[in-house]
Formats: sequence, C-alpha cells, structure tokens
Amino acid sequence: MSAKIPPSKNPRIVIIGAGFAGLRLAKKLANKAFQVVVIDRNNFHQFQPLFYQVATAGLAPSAIAFPLRKALQHAPNVHFRMASVENISLDDKTIQTDIGPITYDQLVIAVGADTNYFNNKEIEANAYPMKSVQESLTLRNRILECLETAMVTEDEQEQEANMHIVVVGGGPTGTEVSGALSEMKRYVLPSDYPELDFSKMRIFLIEASGQLLNGMSPKSSAEAQEFLTEMGVEVKLNTLVESYDGKTVKTKDGTAIETKTLIWAAGVKGNRLAGIPDEYYIANSRIKVNAFNQLIEYPEVFALGDIALLQEEKVFERGHPQVAQVAIQQADNLAKNLLSGFKNPKPFHYSDLGSMATVGRSKAVVDLPGFHFKGFFAWVFWLFVHLMAILGVKNKFFIFIDWLWYYLSFDQSLRLVIRQKPKN
Amino acid sequence: MSAKIPPSKNPRIVIIGAGFAGLRLAKKLANKAFQVVVIDRNNFHQFQPLFYQVATAGLAPSAIAFPLRKALQHAPNVHFRMASVENISLDDKTIQTDIGPITYDQLVIAVGADTNYFNNKEIEANAYPMKSVQESLTLRNRILECLETAMVTEDEQEQEANMHIVVVGGGPTGTEVSGALSEMKRYVLPSDYPELDFSKMRIFLIEASGQLLNGMSPKSSAEAQEFLTEMGVEVKLNTLVESYDGKTVKTKDGTAIETKTLIWAAGVKGNRLAGIPDEYYIANSRIKVNAFNQLIEYPEVFALGDIALLQEEKVFERGHPQVAQVAIQQADNLAKNLLSGFKNPKPFHYSDLGSMATVGRSKAVVDLPGFHFKGFFAWVFWLFVHLMAILGVKNKFFIFIDWLWYYLSFDQSLRLVIRQKPKN
Repeated sequence: MSAKIPPSKNPRIVIIGAGFAGLRLAKKLANKAFQVVVIDRNNFHQFQPLFYQVATAGLAPSAIAFPLRKALQHAPNVHFRMASVENISLDDKTIQTDIGPITYDQLVIAVGADTNYFNNKEIEANAYPMKSVQESLTLRNRILECLETAMVTEDEQEQEANMHIVVVGGGPTGTEVSGALSEMKRYVLPSDYPELDFSKMRIFLIEASGQLLNGMSPKSSAEAQEFLTEMGVEVKLNTLVESYDGKTVKTKDGTAIETKTLIWAAGVKGNRLAGIPDEYYIANSRIKVNAFNQLIEYPEVFALGDIALLQEEKVFERGHPQVAQVAIQQADNLAKNLLSGFKNPKPFHYSDLGSMATVGRSKAVVDLPGFHFKGFFAWVFWLFVHLMAILGVKNKFFIFIDWLWYYLSFDQSLRLVIRQKPKN
Repeated sequence: MSAKIPPSKNPRIVIIGAGFAGLRLAKKLANKAFQVVVIDRNNFHQFQPLFYQVATAGLAPSAIAFPLRKALQHAPNVHFRMASVENISLDDKTIQTDIGPITYDQLVIAVGADTNYFNNKEIEANAYPMKSVQESLTLRNRILECLETAMVTEDEQEQEANMHIVVVGGGPTGTEVSGALSEMKRYVLPSDYPELDFSKMRIFLIEASGQLLNGMSPKSSAEAQEFLTEMGVEVKLNTLVESYDGKTVKTKDGTAIETKTLIWAAGVKGNRLAGIPDEYYIANSRIKVNAFNQLIEYPEVFALGDIALLQEEKVFERGHPQVAQVAIQQADNLAKNLLSGFKNPKPFHYSDLGSMATVGRSKAVVDLPGFHFKGFFAWVFWLFVHLMAILGVKNKFFIFIDWLWYYLSFDQSLRLVIRQKPKN
C-alpha cells in the first residue's frame, strides 16, 4: 500500500484534518497552482456545534456529517486520503501514515482538539465525552439505555442514579446539552416512559468558574443561567469535580451525586501528533505559531484552528477562543498568503463576529459586537446562523425540517439505541 | 432487576419481537382488555424492505428505524421492555430474560428470521449479511472502506478485489442491492474517486436456481434479469457458492472471483429460542403452527410471521413466503381471534396482494393478482407502496424527500464511514 499521490508540477501542500480550518483551506486552494492532499481519519467533515443535538436525539448523525469526497469534488488538484497519521518528520518533510509515507512541500496541521480530562484517568474511563459524531451517538445510546434500566430497577437509589445526568463544564457545549436534556425530560420522555416518575430525573450542570459561557458577556452568562434554572437544570457554579467512578460524582466541596451518566465538557486539549517536538506544544497542547500561523522553526509548516496558538497583540495575548470562526478566518488568511506566494504576507487578525448559545425553545443569548439580545429573536438568529453554516443544501434542508418538526410537535424522534457489531 | 410489569386484572399476552407481526398485533390490542408486554432486543422497529438502501448510502438508518416507545404511546395497557430472551419454559408459562423472569397467560413468538449460511462457518465468518439496520450500516462502511483501500493499493489484482462486489442470492434483497450498487457505480462513485477506473468495479449476482425473484412471475424474473444485465450487473444463474475465505469466492462449477465484499442474501432461517423443543422447528427453523397460528401442543402459545410455518391447504402447503404481508395478515387474524376470546376462531387465510421488486431508476417489476407491469409506472408504484408502509409521518416525509433528491441530483449523500467506539 502507498498513498499513491499522482505526480504534479505544482508544490504539494498536505493538510492534516478536515475540520473547519482544514476543509476551508482545501476549498480555497481548489483549482489553484498547488497540489493539495487532505488527510483525515474519517471520510466526513463534522459540524461540531450541533453534536449536542445528535446526543439528545434531535438530529441524525448524517445530518451533521458531510462526505469529504463530495465536498472536494470538481477540484482535480485536491486529493483526499482517509488515513491516520503515525509520525511526522519535519526535517525530511515526510508524514508517515497507515497507508504509507506522504512527502510535502508545505504542511498544514489542522487536527483540532479533543476532550481534556486534565490527567484524571478515572474520569476519562467513566465519563462520556462529546467531541465527535461517534461519541455523540454513544452518549445518545447511553442516555436511552439508562432510562430502560431505570424502568426495571427495583432499588430506588439505583433507579435515580440511572435518571440523573451530570454535565461538567458550563461552556456552550455544556450549557446547550443541559438545556436540550431538560427539554427532553419535559416534553418527550414522559410519554415514552409512562411508568417512570420524571420528577426523579435531575439534570446537573457543574462549572468550575463563577459563571456559565465564560467567553460571552456577563449579561449572556447570567441570562443563560436564568433560563436553565427556569427549565429545572440544577446549576452549580464555583464547583470542581474531583472524582467519578462510574457511580458517584464527588466534588471538592464534599457533595456527592449518584449518576450513571456523566457528560464531560469541561475542557479541550490539542490532538498531539508524533514527531512534533513536545516543546512546540504550550497551554493545553496547542502549537505555538507566529502571526502567519507558521511554526517558528519550520516556516513551511502551519498550524490552524483549535490546535494553533497565535498570540495576537493586546486582545488575544493568550490565544484565540477555540471556535469555528477563528479556524475559518485563519484558513482564509493562510489561503491568501499562500496564493500570493507569501509576498508581503498578511498577519492574522481575528475579527470577532460575536458569539451565541441556545438553551432551549425560544431561549438563546446572542452577543454581537456592541449589541446583545436574548429570547425568541436570539433563538431564531441562532437557528439561522447554524443552518447557513452547515455544509450542503440537502443537510440544511433536512435540519430545517427537523427543527420545524420538533418545534411544532415537541417530539425528538431519534430515540434509537443503534449499536454496530463490528465484522471480524 | 426485575421486569416490573405492573399488576393487572386482565390476562397477560407477551409478544416477543416487534417486527411487522409483533408490532401490528400489539397495536391491535392497544386499549383492549389484555395486558400486553412487548419484548425486543432493540428499542426500535425496523423496516426490512429498505435495508438495502441503508447499505448503499441512500437512506439514513434512522429513516427506517422507528422508536417502539413512540409507536406504543397512548396505550396504557401495552408495556415495552427492551430485553433479550434467555429461555422459555412453556410448562411454567415463564420467559427468562436478561432483566428477569416474565410470566404470561398467552405467548406470541414473532422473532422473525436471520441469515442462513447453511452451516458454512467460513462463509458466515467472512460474508456481510443484511438482516438488520446495524448489519446494513456495517456493509455500508465496508463498501466505502474497500474503495478507499482501492485508491491506495499498488497491486492491481488486490485493487480489483477491493472493487468487486459479489451478491449471493437472487431474491428481492439480492436483486435490489445489486441494482442499487450498479447505480452507485454509474452515477455517484466516479466523481468521488476520480483517480479510480470504475470499469474495474464489477458487481456479480449469483443465484443457485435458474431464475431471479423466485416468488414472482416468470415474466418479472426475466425482466429483472434483463434490467440488471443492461445496468452492467453480471448475473450468474444455476450457480452454487462453495466457499469464501474473505478473498476468493469459489463456485461449484470451478469459477473463482476475487472480492473483499461478499453480500450474503441467499437464505433465512428462524431465530431459535432456548426452551422451545427442537422438534417444533421444521424447514429452516420455522415453528410449525396450526391454522390459528397456535403451537399444537401449547394452544396458549402462538407463532407469527417469518418464524411461523402454517401449512395452508393447496396453495401454501409448504408454508407462506417470509414477507411482511404474511406477518401483518397473521397478526390481524390472531388479533381478531384473541379479541373474540377464541369463540369460533377464524383460520388464517393468506390473501396475496402481489409482490414487486425494484432494480433501479424507473426499473421495477410488479405482479398484482392477474396483472403484471414493469418500468417507470412499476417503479413509481413500488415507491408509493413502500412509502405508505413506513411507520411515522416524519419518516415518510424524509424518505420521500430523500428519494426525490436522489432522483433529481443522482447523488446518494450518505457516503459516511461512521464506526462507533464502545464505551467501556
């Protein structure tokens, strides 16, 4: 086996990772004077902001996963390879993958970030993360199976443990999934499980700092908390989780909560690649880059998006937030610099278009530059922006119908426990 | 843990299996003077006739899987338990399950059939079956992964083995999946894999008897074969598969075909349940029942659908075809007899509403009683009938849009390799 990249007269840019940054860059370089090789372990792009809707039975995995070969059609200079990177030799400009070596003239590292358990192995072994379509599906199965178990459990404490869900981390993911779970509890589950008493189903949201949605305005944080509290989510701020053995969550202040489902959304760290020297990784495994997203020691190597740490003066001295907008803007900036042959390259400058989070039906918060709003219009705005950002007309259409359906029927219909049995 | 079925004054009917027969019966007994307990390993009903569209990336698994708790809402007398049956004691009227014992007054066995490898362990270990949503997904992953491998394989013979697909069994499943694969080859895959030569992709359909679609009219059989041949499928009749080691399919006549994907649709056998005496199972593990779907020795036990073998005089002396229509009609007949308290019970009589198969775009064959047609109108008829049979308005709507989309765009969009990693 070999990667079989066809010969080309143009310089070869290899992009590792087809998330927001990698895919955007590949598209910008389509049909230009580069040979582009995109490597990803999956054959699809994932729309991370909606993982929580897959986990809560609102959307099918296929709605937020888009085939990369389709995304990269009509660009003969772009070659996709489904492969895992095993090692990178920066000096030899060679990537070792499970389908053989791939050499490059320029390399773009856009591998994103994964869940950070802060070295707590016990929590890692027992908690449910939500950083991929697959993990979101596993969580969906877990939530539904715990309810099935609750149905047939004699022991009351054990039953409640199956009905409690603890979410750790009050960022957008934690906030949004808590809200979605509380809507399931209220609108969907009682008619599915008429024999269960849903007052026993408790949803906890635990956040280490003093507020939810840390990247947003204090107004948004406070309002999101108010929304969640109204909806019955038990929000615990300034609370650190110490341990979780699969049964009991213990926090630093001595509280214990029994639960069979701990959702861990408390932090991320960069996906490290073998061969990149350890000292290049700083703060939670992000690769330090200069203003052009270049590795200082290897100017032909770039890092983009969540994995990159670019210290922009004054405002973003500790790096940018790890969100899609930064990834996309960095890809755009790098594409421009590459296409100009790095003549008078432009340093990256993040233009913050705002941020938002949705908590539930007609309950969202939006911060735009100099402007904040909440409630129904914020929620509609959130829906619109996410719909427009989703790849593919068909996905947009299906998600729109799904949302409309749910809005009118109060019924998330994907309450399926589908487990694949591997062959061989 | 215990099954925790609430007490009831009414007799308890336990239905094992929520396929076409089991779910239909449960719905007919909703809000009647019975306590109904439905047991299934999965928490969803599966629409078997469209498995092949999941396998060929045309439909999402959720489109043809319907949550059982939703299907059984608004019927307080019907209790669903997601459980696996471990043993049945017919004399004690007790079912042992993984959630504890469940007793019954009347028992309905509607567990359907699974793939029959006719005791060939080697084929069983290496072939891909298509008898569940999960298996269809595994097959979808396999087909796409083989193409990814073909992209990076140096050895030409190995590359071709990754591009060959052999379908064994010329019934509706085998015929329909062969047709769908040949359409993928023609319309969808070449733009995904511009570096591959798709003349190397060969699709074989192997059938042991002298014709395809054995249950249908000779006209339909011949026309389906003609359609497939036109579409480039290599149909081999009167051919018995002897062995498959994961690389080479060998047939009795000495031919060898190299393939990494063998789809086995050559036969089914009943799902046996521990505790049912072996001698009750005849012809391919079907349970022999009388004209009322009763086990002769245990009149309070019934078998319905694919698992049942009911010998109807003259026309169906060797049992009915194992299709949805028989299952549904048997459930309807049993419901009537149960609701009348088995006073003057009616024997089952199958009314054959016809059968059909689709091979591709505008290519289908339909046999109605005394009437046969093919081509575009047959295809539209097939689409309509299947759409109407699908459970749930939303599923109907989504599948309709999916089909319309594919019809207009020539683009099956679910070309995703999604593998779940189990937690713990």
